[in-house]
Amino acid sequence: MATKEKTLDDLFLETLKDIYHAEKQILRGLTKMAKSTKTPELAQAFETHRDETDGQVQRLEQVFEILGKRPQAKPCEAIQGLIAEATEVMDEFKGTDALDAGLLSAAQAVEHYEISRYGTLKAWATQLGMKDAANLLDETLKEEKKTDQLLNQLAERSLNKKAA
Amino acid sequence: MATKEKTLDDLFLETLKDIYHAEKQILRGLTKMAKSTKTPELAQAFETHRDETDGQVQRLEQVFEILGKRPQAKPCEAIQGLIAEATEVMDEFKGTDALDAGLLSAAQAVEHYEISRYGTLKAWATQLGMKDAANLLDETLKEEKKTDQLLNQLAERSLNKKAA
Repeated sequence: MATKEKTLDDLFLETLKDIYHAEKQILRGLTKMAKSTKTPELAQAFETHRDETDGQVQRLEQVFEILGKRPQAKPCEAIQGLIAEATEVMDEFKGTDALDAGLLSAAQAVEHYEISRYGTLKAWATQLGMKDAANLLDETLKEEKKTDQLLNQLAERSLNKKAA
Repeated sequence: MATKEKTLDDLFLETLKDIYHAEKQILRGLTKMAKSTKTPELAQAFETHRDETDGQVQRLEQVFEILGKRPQAKPCEAIQGLIAEATEVMDEFKGTDALDAGLLSAAQAVEHYEISRYGTLKAWATQLGMKDAANLLDETLKEEKKTDQLLNQLAERSLNKKAA
């Protein structure tokens, strides 16, 4: 065969480029979502997670460095779809009581995408013997899980408040 | 205001249409993924989950019935993106040792999307006082979480086998 067969190293690098693009889209998405809600507590949560996402982008850049590669983004169709759905909710439910529920749901779908991707990347980095990369990815994975739990609490509180 | 303000009921119905479309796309995706792998254990897992997904579609139809609505699918951009990524992996890694890792990763991203959506829908159904709908959504949520755990085990086993 003339072309070299693709390996787990290639899959790791491509998935890294994909989540690098995703994180940059999420940065922009979180800024929009923070502006869109009228609930200060929720706006604060989105802003805090945006700052956290900045740090996650930097960790990804460190992983690229470990690989000896230049950080490169590859359009991530999944995140584009997730953000398109979030934008739709922001447009359709603008100014309504249900907006926060929609925003929280969209943010949690994004968190779950990231949890799945970082879980996979961490397992692959470990398999490929890149301990430092695995540790960096694990730090982000833990942050994403914590954010998902926080969003869950905010969602429950928000629903209960609406019902009260 | 001439138009009625949108409520949580509307958000619930729209998200239900979205996941109804997603499940139908997933049915087709799982069939392709089962055909794509050369590992019988993995093909079996995808086929089993496809059959399970058939049941999940029926549960969604029961929830539409509870709402007194005709089951209706609304294009779900998130799942379209997730499936586009899965298809890309199937094409790029066809016949390689890394294909299974890519398929498992794609399937887990889909599971996490569903876990997030069913978690949200269940919370909203509870909030809206639809106990039977919440129970149906919870049954599916539990299945999705179980499938994610199974995929995790298969991914670990598959990586360890490749390394041996």
